[in-house]
Formats: sequence, structure tokens, C-alpha cells
Amino acid sequence: MTAPAVILVRPQLGVNIGACARAMLNFGLTDLRLVSPRDGWPNADAGPAASGADAVLDGARVFDSVADACAGLSLVFATTIRNRELIRRVVTPEQAAADCHALAAPAGIMFGPERTGLETEDLAVAHAILTIPVNPDFGSLNLAQAVLVVAYEWFRQGSGAPAATLVNHDGPAPHEELEGLIAAIDAQLGANGYYNPVPGRAAAARLLMRNLFTRPEYSAGEVRTLRGIVRGLSFKRHPGVD
Amino acid sequence: MTAPAVILVRPQLGVNIGACARAMLNFGLTDLRLVSPRDGWPNADAGPAASGADAVLDGARVFDSVADACAGLSLVFATTIRNRELIRRVVTPEQAAADCHALAAPAGIMFGPERTGLETEDLAVAHAILTIPVNPDFGSLNLAQAVLVVAYEWFRQGSGAPAATLVNHDGPAPHEELEGLIAAIDAQLGANGYYNPVPGRAAAARLLMRNLFTRPEYSAGEVRTLRGIVRGLSFKRHPGVD
Repeated sequence: MTAPAVILVRPQLGVNIGACARAMLNFGLTDLRLVSPRDGWPNADAGPAASGADAVLDGARVFDSVADACAGLSLVFATTIRNRELIRRVVTPEQAAADCHALAAPAGIMFGPERTGLETEDLAVAHAILTIPVNPDFGSLNLAQAVLVVAYEWFRQGSGAPAATLVNHDGPAPHEELEGLIAAIDAQLGANGYYNPVPGRAAAARLLMRNLFTRPEYSAGEVRTLRGIVRGLSFKRHPGVD
Repeated sequence: MTAPAVILVRPQLGVNIGACARAMLNFGLTDLRLVSPRDGWPNADAGPAASGADAVLDGARVFDSVADACAGLSLVFATTIRNRELIRRVVTPEQAAADCHALAAPAGIMFGPERTGLETEDLAVAHAILTIPVNPDFGSLNLAQAVLVVAYEWFRQGSGAPAATLVNHDGPAPHEELEGLIAAIDAQLGANGYYNPVPGRAAAARLLMRNLFTRPEYSAGEVRTLRGIVRGLSFKRHPGVD
């Protein structure tokens, strides 16, 4: 479950290399490998675009060929959207990330140059093709965006973040406080004749009210606020002034 | 299963609004809502950054308040990384996208201004908080990157793209052609004495070889190429010239 390497093949602009480093580090990827960057390496444009992901740029390694850049990697994905005359397994980012997590050894994910993408010779070095599913009518992911999606998938699958949690700093109120709120509303509604006209209305209304106020898991402070609102609705603070 | 709206609250730079439109359209989102954009609307910087997603920009609607911008939306998520004094369900992009898909009515996802993010007053309008899980040591997603991740999740869950497919334009070769290849290798290995020294070696080697050549699902053309390689290994083309 080593984080996969990102292999940028013949990247053109330093600013894009920096943006890729930033995208990587957001999701815990640090192994950046550059194959024949057009403007050499290091590249002064990369740093500012990395927005603080300098460690990734500083650790980047440069290679002369895709095959050399894949040293140490047991599984290599080539990212491309084009359907080539090539027989390969084609996987989603989701599947690629799952494969990376399942593998004991490091994997690598290869991205082609801006605009042109990977050549057939580059793809031949990869074990599988990674294709990001996009809107068939508008596929316009730039290099750093493609890296971001792939890195996000890897991090998401390993993060173990719960899909949903309720943040309630105080915790829900003790039950008797909620009962106090419901009783206060109930008493005022009764006094105001709200339940009178229709037989059976009181029971149905009380059930509805209980559901309304129980489900949100109100904290003690929120229950106090609601009791204040109930009082505010029920009584004029300055009798005679409407 | 309507695509969710993207609500940009007090966005500052036109270039970022354009980049958000591009990120959205890549993953099929088109409903862009702007709350009090700092430099007004339309903004000349947005178009070039949208890289062709002009339809999203042209259809963008401007509102004076977050509450107005949420008109027509039945479920609103507020994207933030900060833990506030606010009692809300906190969900991953994955869960938010699942909620959007499960909902018959449109949902919306709200993003705050660059740098400062959403204010407590903005969050109060949202039903739940969306937090993108990032590297705890380096969380540096810009506005368009956050939109990209959320939009990707929505599209991924609805795309129905198979996790993995084997692209093999010709399909695997008819079985007898693979048998012909294996037989040709077998005959040459036998003739060269490869099986001789160790008893039982021939059977084990044949099993291994069958596995090696069956698993990749070679096409008929690839089987022919392999037969040519076998011939090339077995016979000198120009006897006498080494």
C-alpha cells in the first residue's frame, strides 16, 4: 500500500509540473518522476504553481525514457482518453486505485504531455490503460486536473473517512429537556384552543411535533433557544405595545 | 437524479469562475449560480479560463444572497474544511454524490470565496457540510479543484462505466491457433534437448508454457507474431552469417 508514483512524460510547462505536485501532495502522493521535461529540470515556473508542495518538486527525479522511469514499479497505468490499436485492460481511476491499494509493491501512473498525450510507444510500457470517465460532449481535463482525480481516488480509498458523521459538539440534549420543550408547546397550544375543533387532532399533532423535534438531535443549548422562541411566540413582552 | 447546482459564494477572480465552469462541464454539471461575485458579472476573465465551457458561463445566474441562490434546491451542501461551532451532518464527496443521485429533486453544492471560505451565516443555509478528505499535512485545494473533485464524484457514481474492460479489437485468437503456437514451441524445445536432463521436466514446462500463453488472451495477429518470434529464435535466416 505504498503510494503510487506519478510519471509525467515529456511535460511542457513548468507551471503544470508545479500544479501536478500540488495536486499530488493534497492526496498524499510524493514520488514524482519526470521523463524528458521539455524545458529541462529544475524549472523556475514550477515552484510558485506548487503552492507549497516544494518537497515533491525537490524530490522529483528525471529520466531519459519511460522504461527507466518505471524502475521499481510493479504495476504501471498509462492515462489516456484515446482508444488506440492496443490490447490492454482499460480501468477507471477507481479500479486503478483499488489495484494500487491491493499491491504490496509500488505502482506508477503515467501522464502524457499537455495536448498531445501519451504516444503508442509510451503505452506499450504500461500494464493497463487508465481512462477518467468524462462528459462525452466535453472532455477537457488538463494535466494537473487528471493527476488530481487519480490522486483523490487513491486517497479516498485509503482514508477510511466515515461517509457521514454528525458534528454536535455538545451532543444531543438529555431527553427530559426535549420533553420539557414539547410539554411547553403542548400546553400553550392547548391553552390557545389549537386542538379544539377536530376530534383526534391533539393526538396526531402531538405525534407530529414529537417527530419534528426529536429527529434533529438538538443540543441542550438549542432546546433552550427553542423554549425561548416558544415563550416569545406565546406572550407579549410589553403588554399593550403590539 | 438531476445534476446538482454549483453555488459559488462571493467568488473573487473571474479566472477561477471560468475554471470552475470547465471543471463542472467535464463531469456533466451545468447549473452555475453566483452569489455576489466580487467583480460583477459577466467577467471577461472567465471565458478564456473555461476552455470551451461557455454554455455554463452563459447560463450562470447571479443572486444577492445564499438563500436566494438555493431556490429550487431540496438539499444543499456547504463545502468547508474547517470545523465550526455548528451542528451538522458532515459528509464525504462520495456520500454527497450518493445523496444527490438518490434525490428526485435537484441538490446544490456551495463553495466559498477563495482563501477565506464560507462564513457561518452561509453554512446555516446548508443542510449538511461537505468536507473533501485531504492529506492532513498539506490541504491546498483551490476553488476549481474542489469543484472538480465533487463533480467527478457525481459523474463517477452515475457513469455506469465498467471498472475494467479488456480492449481487444480483434478478440482473442481461435483456440487452435494458440495450440499451434504452443505445439511449435514445444517441438523446437524438444528438438533442442531442452526437456532432456530432468525427468518430468517436460510435463511441468508444458503446463507453465500453456499458462503463460493462454492468460493474455492474445489476438490472432499476436499469435502470428509470436510464431514468427519462435521461428526467428529457432533458425538462422542466413546460415553461415552469425
